[in-house]
Formats: sequence, C-alpha cells, structure tokens
Amino acid sequence: MKRVLSTLFLCMSSITYAKTSAPENIIMIVGDGMGPAYASAYRYFHDNPNTPEIEQTVFDRHLVGMSSTYPAQVSGVVTDSAAGATALATGIKSYNGAIGVDVDKKPLESVLVWAKKQGKKTGIVVTSRINHATPASYLSHNESRRNYDEIADSYVDDTLNGQFKADLMLGGGWKHFIREDRNLVNEFKQAGFHYLDSYAGLSKLPKNQPVLGLFADAGLPWALDDSNKHRLSAMTKAATAHLENKNGYFMLIEASQVDWGGHSNDIAAAMAEMDDLAKTLEFLETYVEKNPNTLVVLTADHSTGGFTIGAHGEYAWRPEVLRTMTMSPETIAEKLSEKAINQAYAKSLFKFALTEVELAQLQLDKAEAAAEVKAYEAAKAAGKAKKMAEPEQVASVLETSVKQLIDKRTNTGWTSGGHTGVDVPVFAFGPQSERFNGLQDNTDIAKKIFTLLGKN
Amino acid sequence: MKRVLSTLFLCMSSITYAKTSAPENIIMIVGDGMGPAYASAYRYFHDNPNTPEIEQTVFDRHLVGMSSTYPAQVSGVVTDSAAGATALATGIKSYNGAIGVDVDKKPLESVLVWAKKQGKKTGIVVTSRINHATPASYLSHNESRRNYDEIADSYVDDTLNGQFKADLMLGGGWKHFIREDRNLVNEFKQAGFHYLDSYAGLSKLPKNQPVLGLFADAGLPWALDDSNKHRLSAMTKAATAHLENKNGYFMLIEASQVDWGGHSNDIAAAMAEMDDLAKTLEFLETYVEKNPNTLVVLTADHSTGGFTIGAHGEYAWRPEVLRTMTMSPETIAEKLSEKAINQAYAKSLFKFALTEVELAQLQLDKAEAAAEVKAYEAAKAAGKAKKMAEPEQVASVLETSVKQLIDKRTNTGWTSGGHTGVDVPVFAFGPQSERFNGLQDNTDIAKKIFTLLGKN
Ligand SMILES: [Zn+2]
Ligand SMILES: [Zn+2]
Repeated sequence: MKRVLSTLFLCMSSITYAKTSAPENIIMIVGDGMGPAYASAYRYFHDNPNTPEIEQTVFDRHLVGMSSTYPAQVSGVVTDSAAGATALATGIKSYNGAIGVDVDKKPLESVLVWAKKQGKKTGIVVTSRINHATPASYLSHNESRRNYDEIADSYVDDTLNGQFKADLMLGGGWKHFIREDRNLVNEFKQAGFHYLDSYAGLSKLPKNQPVLGLFADAGLPWALDDSNKHRLSAMTKAATAHLENKNGYFMLIEASQVDWGGHSNDIAAAMAEMDDLAKTLEFLETYVEKNPNTLVVLTADHSTGGFTIGAHGEYAWRPEVLRTMTMSPETIAEKLSEKAINQAYAKSLFKFALTEVELAQLQLDKAEAAAEVKAYEAAKAAGKAKKMAEPEQVASVLETSVKQLIDKRTNTGWTSGGHTGVDVPVFAFGPQSERFNGLQDNTDIAKKIFTLLGKN
Repeated sequence: MKRVLSTLFLCMSSITYAKTSAPENIIMIVGDGMGPAYASAYRYFHDNPNTPEIEQTVFDRHLVGMSSTYPAQVSGVVTDSAAGATALATGIKSYNGAIGVDVDKKPLESVLVWAKKQGKKTGIVVTSRINHATPASYLSHNESRRNYDEIADSYVDDTLNGQFKADLMLGGGWKHFIREDRNLVNEFKQAGFHYLDSYAGLSKLPKNQPVLGLFADAGLPWALDDSNKHRLSAMTKAATAHLENKNGYFMLIEASQVDWGGHSNDIAAAMAEMDDLAKTLEFLETYVEKNPNTLVVLTADHSTGGFTIGAHGEYAWRPEVLRTMTMSPETIAEKLSEKAINQAYAKSLFKFALTEVELAQLQLDKAEAAAEVKAYEAAKAAGKAKKMAEPEQVASVLETSVKQLIDKRTNTGWTSGGHTGVDVPVFAFGPQSERFNGLQDNTDIAKKIFTLLGKN
C-alpha cells in the first residue's frame, strides 16, 4: 500500500510537471574528452581521505544515461571534437573536422541558433578559444575546424548581417579576434557589444548589452595555472545572471580542457579541469533550485587519451598527490628547466616530497636533454647542425618526465594521444531531465533539445 | 495536452504496475570485467557493414545507469572479482579476495540464499568453474577466492547439512568436484542431484530434481573455441525452463570470460564472449515478453585490461577481422607452433589474409622462440641449464604475437593485465527495472534486489 501511495504521489507531481514541462532555460554542457573514466576518477580524486566512506560527487548525483559518439560512416567509429560537437549541436552526424556542416558540407542549424529564433537569449562559455571546435559548431559553419580566423570572422559577420546569434561569449581567442588584418573586438564593440578582457570584469557585466569576454590568446591557462582555478564556474555564474530574461535562454558551456589533459596524458591537469567543471555543476545545482525552469544537460563528445584508472597489472589508483598540486606539469617542467633540481626546489613545485629515485630521474632526464641541446648548439656554431635533428627543448623533455613521474605515483594508464570510441556518460537535472535517461546517440541529445525548444 | 494525457496514461499503468510490482523471477547477470568500453565496442563489432547505419545492440536497448565498483577501503579503489561479487551478492563491500565475507571475515547472506529462504528456486549459470569468485560469492563464504577446493566442498556440505542453496549449477570445474580425496559429483548424486557433463544433456534436464552440470576441468573453453560458441545462452535457456515454478526463482548468470579476454589483452576472445552474452540477453528479452514477471539486471563487477577503442593517436577502431574469426588467438598460436607458417596455413587459422609484414613477423617470432628453446635444451643436455632462465614456450610467444597482430589490425589499446576502476554500465528490463536507473554503487544493486525479495 505504501508503495501504491508513493506512486500516486509521484504521479500527481509528474502531472503538475507535465503542464509546465518545457524548461525556459536550457544549459548544455560539454565536458570535452570526458569519457566515463574521468567522472569515475574524479570521485576518487575528490574523496576526503579523512572519512571512511567515499563521498558522492555532483556527477554521481545526476548521471542519467550514456551516449554513443561515433561520427558519420566516412570517419569510422572514433569521432573528433568537431564532428562530436556538430552532432550535439545540430542532431546530424558529420565527418571529423566538420563545423556545423553535414557530410556534403551544407550548413546545419544548431539548437543555439534555433533557440535564438524562438526569442531566447543565447550564450557560450568555454575554456578554449571561443572559435574552437565545440562552440564553433553551435555558432558557425565551416568545412574545417582549422579555419580559426574564418570562424572568428563569421561570428562578427553574422552579427553585422542581421544573423545575431549569441548575447554572450566568454573564453579565449585574442590571437584570432585582434589580428593585423582585422580587429574583430573593435567590430564587435561597434556592433554594440560590451568587451572585457579580464575575469575582474565578470562581476560587472551590463545587463542589457551583448557581451564578448576574451581572457587569453588562445585557450585559457590550465585550471592548475590560472589566476582563478575555477574560472569556468566564475564565468558560468556571471553568464547565467546576464542571460536571465522572461523568454529564457540557451547556453552552451564547455569544459574544453579535460580533453587537453587527455591528449597530453596529463592526469593532474585533467583532474583540475574536472574540478572546475564539478564546481560549475555544483553552482548550477543551486541555480536550478532557485530557477526551477532551468534544464541542465552535461555530456562529453568522446573520451580522450585512453585514460584508465589503474594500469600495469596493479589493482590500484592513488590520486592523493593530485589533490595538493597547484601548478600544471607543464609549468613545473618549465620551472625545473630554469634552476638546479634539488629536493627543496622540487617540493616547492610539486607540493609533495619526491623519492630519491624520482629526483634522480628528473636530474638525469634534464642533464641528457641539456647535453643534446648543447651538442646541437655547438654543431650549429661550427656550421655542422644541418645534418642533425633539432633536439627537444629541455622543458619539453622535463614535462614528459614530470607526467611519467605522476603516472607512476598514481598508477595511471594511457593508450593514446588521441580520442577513443567508448560511450560517454550523460548527466541531467531540472525539468524534462528524464528525457535523457538510458542510452542515446549524441545526435539524440540535440534532437531532444530541439523538441524542448518546440521544433518538430 | 497530448503530453499531459500521455503522462496520465503512464501514471495509470504505473499504478497497476505498483500493485503487481515485485517480480517473481529475478535474473542477475554479471559480465565479469565488462567495463563501458566492452559494451560500446560490441556495437561496432556487431555492426552490419552492409548497411549505412550502425545497428543498435541488445545492450543499447536496456542501458539504465552505471555502477561504481570500488572495494572496501583497505583494498583501495580498484576491486577484484571476489570483492566485486561479494558486493553485488550481499550488499557489503569487502577486501579483494573475499568470498561472501566482510572485512572481518564474517559470513554475509547473499541475495540468492535469501531468495531460497523465501521459497524461490535458485540457480547459477557461469562460463568459469562454478566455484570461481563470482558464483562462489553467492553460494559460499571463504576468506580467500583461491581456496577453490574448500569452496567446492562447501557447496555439497551445505546441501548435506540442510542448507540447500542452489537447484541448478551449470559451468565448469571437474578438477575441483572430482578429486582423488573427494568426489563431490558422486556426493551430489547421492544427495539427489541430476548430473550432466555435456551440453547435449541440457535439452533433457529433469524438471523436479536439482541439477549439477559440469562441462570442463576449470573454465569452459573460450567461446571462440567451444563446440557451442553460444554456450552461455544455451545453458541459460535450459536453466530458465528448469527453474520456472509458482514461487519464482533467482538466478545468477555470469559471462565469466569477458574478464579473461581483458586479462590476456585478447580483443578477439573478449568480443566473442560479449557475443555469447548478447545472445543470452536477446533470449531473455523474448523470455521476459512471455514471462513478464521476470526482472533481468546486468552489470559488471569492474573493467579489465584497460581496454580502449582506439589507441596510439589514431582515431580509428577496426573490428572487421574480429567478426569472422573462429578460433581464439591461443588456439591459433598453438596451431602455428605445430606447422610451418605460410600464408595459406595462417589464413586457414585467422580467416583473413595476412600482410607480408604480418606473416614475416610471426615467422620471426616463432624462429626466435624456437631458437631459445633449442639453446636451452642443448644446455640442459650438457648439464649447463641451471644458470639459464627457462625460455617461454613457442606457442606462448606466438600467442602474444597473434594478439599484437590483431591489436594493430584493429587499433586496440590496453594498459593492464589487471582490473581498472572505471564505473561500469547497468542494464535492466522487466518489472522494477527502473529502480536501477542512474548511478548506483555495486552494493546498491544487492540492496535493491533484497528489497524486491521482501527483505527490509
Ligand atoms: Zn580532443
Ligand atoms: Zn578479473
């Protein structure tokens, strides 16, 4: 009886729900490269070692299903971020490299553009350059993701040609938006946009003016290295406040650099990006409580790096050292290349004491790399360098050493510098989030959002 | 309005549902080692290359959520199959190696034993030996999974001591059940069990007599090598017919050897095991249609091998050659060790033509391995072998070569010979399957089944 009553109760609330069903605001989040191992790993990274249980994460609370990610047949079964984003943005599979176009390179309408046509405000918030594959697939059409300047140009050209698409764009990209041949920032300003170039400006976005915020030449610094390690959540907070209006909004958020951690097989960087994404989701949890007409959907476009939680036959993964790091391996390596490596100096960078073996390995790798550079320089001075391959920079060699050291410490596995084809998790909360239950294709996610936005 | 009506309709049916809610039959399936990449990969393996779309698999139709798999704190975050099965069987996390006991080695009641106490019939169907970690955690209690004989003894001792647990046990295990010190098969027969030792016997199981079916010394042959490549589905079909009764039944099914494919980094074997599991699920789909009071839940205890769909920076996975293979790499290697390797012979084993490079590599690996064995034999004859490490058998060296050849062909990645900590998919259909939606812990799966079986 108790069971029947509670079912009745649930039913009554779902009837009320159905009447007010289409969410006014839709926030689509892409964790680029965030395959299933990243969300699982974040649980162990995030765990409080002082409690016996393993704490639930914000991801754990909202998992509803998974998504397949394969691109159009012509590109096999492993997608890149462009085809992945095109599928998530438009509901159509395309070839790897495609930005908002189909296999015949014909432009496809994105859910963002459709939402704008329905009178909603729209925005994008990313940690890559704003003309990178994922946001570009929502805002532009191009036969190749590599045409960064063309894509950036299209953003302002669309605006000037009466195809205004986004009320807010936050991320990186100075080198494409402030060029010698064309200053898109000035053009956006002339078109009425408010421009900001530092996170400080996020606290004072003008409410009734479109916004362009660029905070870096290309992608933002790694979360680990950035002045605000939770810059995605800071941008998201500002963006929601800016976009709120009586007609609702559609926003794309991308945690772009989980993917980059995967590509460079850098688990420290990847977990810090996941932490920024988790803080963003936690903010959105409270936001949806206060704004219950907001749907949040999070998925990944694919997994990256072939990351595995444990490796080499050992049944262990030890994220402890990752929890206290305050610099990316890339930055640690640069600093290690600048001064003599000793325990005190290394500890000041890693924030944990290295073993003698670890320290000796770094010293050895540095000495060997430096010797190669020196030999090359000497040969160059003697006019004999042409026959030699240019050696890797010392900092670059050390970056690999630092990542390997951390992989050994944590027992992290990688199989690739590229993407892999595993299905990715789907998280959702807010009205109609149950539509994303179970397995779906990446194209289904766009189709469901189109339906929620009234497109048949 | 349409939406409200359909919600009302759903509600009415879920009220009806609630009244008849607890399923009479519960079939719990463990795909040992079947992390998320295995189910995704199976989709691409299973794809019909003659159609433009990628066909949905039976897994795709029934995904409802995911499960975390970490063991008790003492064993870190990567589980073994014993702790994983103990969690799935009893709802309690334990240490790696534990069979149905907690961290203090105290026995824990399994859902199977509880179901038996409720008057249900019970059964286990596995492709490992029936006293292997997963089935043992449902049927026994032991401080170590390695005590195979003790565990086997407990099966018959429980029966003789009035703690009858399973009406049906199908799998492997002659070497533990027919021993010099004790013949458990005879003891089971004396206790009233019907015994069969070949798949042929599956078609004539006596309806009102408990059944013990052992078909191999330890685990069954690889699906690829077995006389019936779909032996798990054949056993399952016979088991459901045997267990049906007015009080319902609880059955554990394990696709044990997905894990073994993972451990040995053998994608050909793993995909064939997945295919047998898929056929089993497809049979159960039609079974649940005819027996709508049956709940089917499938999950994995962990992922194995750090398997990734794509590797080495290449955005591709090519399962084509896997689809036509009819022998395991282990068997191919044995046969390659027995006769001279040439294209015709290799093709008769692999069922695809090797490239010249592939063929030459196999010939080279074989020649080198044979030379090492010969040198060792010569040294042994001369009484000088003690100083030398015993060389690997030629067939064993060739098995590695064959698997590497297939990994290159398919672009498959591996990071481990052991397990990894990624969350695993959960599939369910039948009444109350929605209870398994979203993320849950492995212990929650047992707790939900206990609830469905009326335990508070
Ligand atoms: Zn990428
Ligand atoms: Zn295993």
